[in-house]
Amino acid sequence: MIRDEFEFINKIKSKETQQPSLIKGIGDDAAVFKSSHMFDELICMDTMVEGVHFTKQTMTPFMLGFKALAVNISDIAAMGGIPTYYLVSIAVPKGWTEEELLEIYAGMSKLGKQYSMDLIGGDTVSSPGGLIITVTVCGKIEKGTSLYRHQASSGDIIFVVGQLGASAAGLELLLKHGLTHNYSSTEKLLLEAHQLPMPQVAAGRLFATSGEKISLNDISDGLASEANEIAEASNVDLLIEFEKIPRSDYIKDFPLDEQRRWCLFGGEDYLLVGTMSQAAFQKISETFREKAIMLTIIGEVTIGSGDVYITENNKKKKLLKQGFNHFNKGEDNGKI
Amino acid sequence: MIRDEFEFINKIKSKETQQPSLIKGIGDDAAVFKSSHMFDELICMDTMVEGVHFTKQTMTPFMLGFKALAVNISDIAAMGGIPTYYLVSIAVPKGWTEEELLEIYAGMSKLGKQYSMDLIGGDTVSSPGGLIITVTVCGKIEKGTSLYRHQASSGDIIFVVGQLGASAAGLELLLKHGLTHNYSSTEKLLLEAHQLPMPQVAAGRLFATSGEKISLNDISDGLASEANEIAEASNVDLLIEFEKIPRSDYIKDFPLDEQRRWCLFGGEDYLLVGTMSQAAFQKISETFREKAIMLTIIGEVTIGSGDVYITENNKKKKLLKQGFNHFNKGEDNGKI
Repeated sequence: MIRDEFEFINKIKSKETQQPSLIKGIGDDAAVFKSSHMFDELICMDTMVEGVHFTKQTMTPFMLGFKALAVNISDIAAMGGIPTYYLVSIAVPKGWTEEELLEIYAGMSKLGKQYSMDLIGGDTVSSPGGLIITVTVCGKIEKGTSLYRHQASSGDIIFVVGQLGASAAGLELLLKHGLTHNYSSTEKLLLEAHQLPMPQVAAGRLFATSGEKISLNDISDGLASEANEIAEASNVDLLIEFEKIPRSDYIKDFPLDEQRRWCLFGGEDYLLVGTMSQAAFQKISETFREKAIMLTIIGEVTIGSGDVYITENNKKKKLLKQGFNHFNKGEDNGKI
Repeated sequence: MIRDEFEFINKIKSKETQQPSLIKGIGDDAAVFKSSHMFDELICMDTMVEGVHFTKQTMTPFMLGFKALAVNISDIAAMGGIPTYYLVSIAVPKGWTEEELLEIYAGMSKLGKQYSMDLIGGDTVSSPGGLIITVTVCGKIEKGTSLYRHQASSGDIIFVVGQLGASAAGLELLLKHGLTHNYSSTEKLLLEAHQLPMPQVAAGRLFATSGEKISLNDISDGLASEANEIAEASNVDLLIEFEKIPRSDYIKDFPLDEQRRWCLFGGEDYLLVGTMSQAAFQKISETFREKAIMLTIIGEVTIGSGDVYITENNKKKKLLKQGFNHFNKGEDNGKI
């Protein structure tokens, strides 16, 4: 249906801005607009579709609610913001019970409470096909401190928060064995990374309040894709060293090519990738150590024109944006 | 799936508020939270589902986009607010072309520009069933001036902005004859009321800036349903005189029982119903005359316990919340 996502977004994106309070519209993890003299407002919207992003074989209703909210909070985290409110629209096909729907809301409430968020609106409607859940999350951030993906400069280091690959590994297990298989304790942690991802709000806040110039993306579509977005938006090249990418401790027994695929293209880890100066990293990494949040340098930013390269076994090659679709049903045309 | 909508919403609604800035969460046309020292922020979210709220036989893609935004702007109008931003998520089934999708956005853009609104985010995903479009609209309103449905007092008059019934009449024509029938010019106006409804932002602004205590709802689910919401929220009774309800000039040749059904239960006119004191009405009606916006008294508010009554041919009877589902596919479980 949509031939080229990038072109499509360009077509629907207005050339000029109407509202004088708008700071950033389409094109980053969340939109930013002026609100008070202290805070800017953040807002984002993300949709999960049964058969495209989840099935009843990969997620319980509780997990679905939790994750649908988590992926949106992750977008607020990727701006450096504080999540505040959420609205939820659910299109429900025949066959879902009221108890299951309440479980979806319970999953959202569980996560929302951790961030003192309030559910403030939404809609429930019938769906002729699968269940479709759309969540809007509002957030706030100290005026002028949002962390955009266009803020990478040559000379910056590239960093990742956390360890990659667990979510994609967990999903592959779920697709193979289903929800109720007798999983090992390690496997359960992989499943959990996929089903109940934790948005990196604390890390985002440390970045935003550091006063440093930082570019930031959350890793929803895989490191390759997110790094390319930073490179394109900042008009620089990113050079990643594969060996430096922190891989989940729980995937290290799997074949290396699978680890590689999960880390670079698997996505849905909802961790953070970004760039900052060497000097900023020296300063900030100390705070991350104190808070026990993993922060790892994985490469550097160079002068360029928006490409990403990866070195593996001393060979440098282009790292393209490709992800992969686990469910092989329909496409996720992606976020506006 | 959902047995009792009211109970369901009560179950998902948190008992306590987390964010100190929240003024009104679930339970009105839009949520309200504090933003700057001058303005409160408004936000709402509404979903339209193919086969439940529209079909390709009732709406072109352009109209669908226009209306999906209009119904959300209408919620901001019903709070007295100024719409500012919108986000759009579309779940698209196979068979929709990119051109049709661009038409949906063109319809939204057409209406959005009239209110100087910016499209600032969203998502496009695949749908296993019909097309589902969810829109979030942000707005703002001068601090503390939002028009809630719980603000009706006994002694108030009940008013309606505009003339009712055209949208439901238009929909019935569309369901009978389809989009491309050779309609008369009058019939075309009825179709347009259904396909391209105009939210009553100007009227809402006049109410909000009047400084009067006004309760207000937009008429999305029919006058009967909206009046009941005001009565329940304000814990008063509403007494409506059927003969006083302003009916669309273009439905007056149809049988009276059809006119009655369209006006009371048809919905989707996206006009406004509310209450204010007699004295306020005297003051405000003058301004409405000057601006050529129809404002009509249709009844009065009395002491009571949340019921709505209607007098017809000198008989008084209870007016229940019922609406009707034109498409007979699935249910619209309604707005949170």
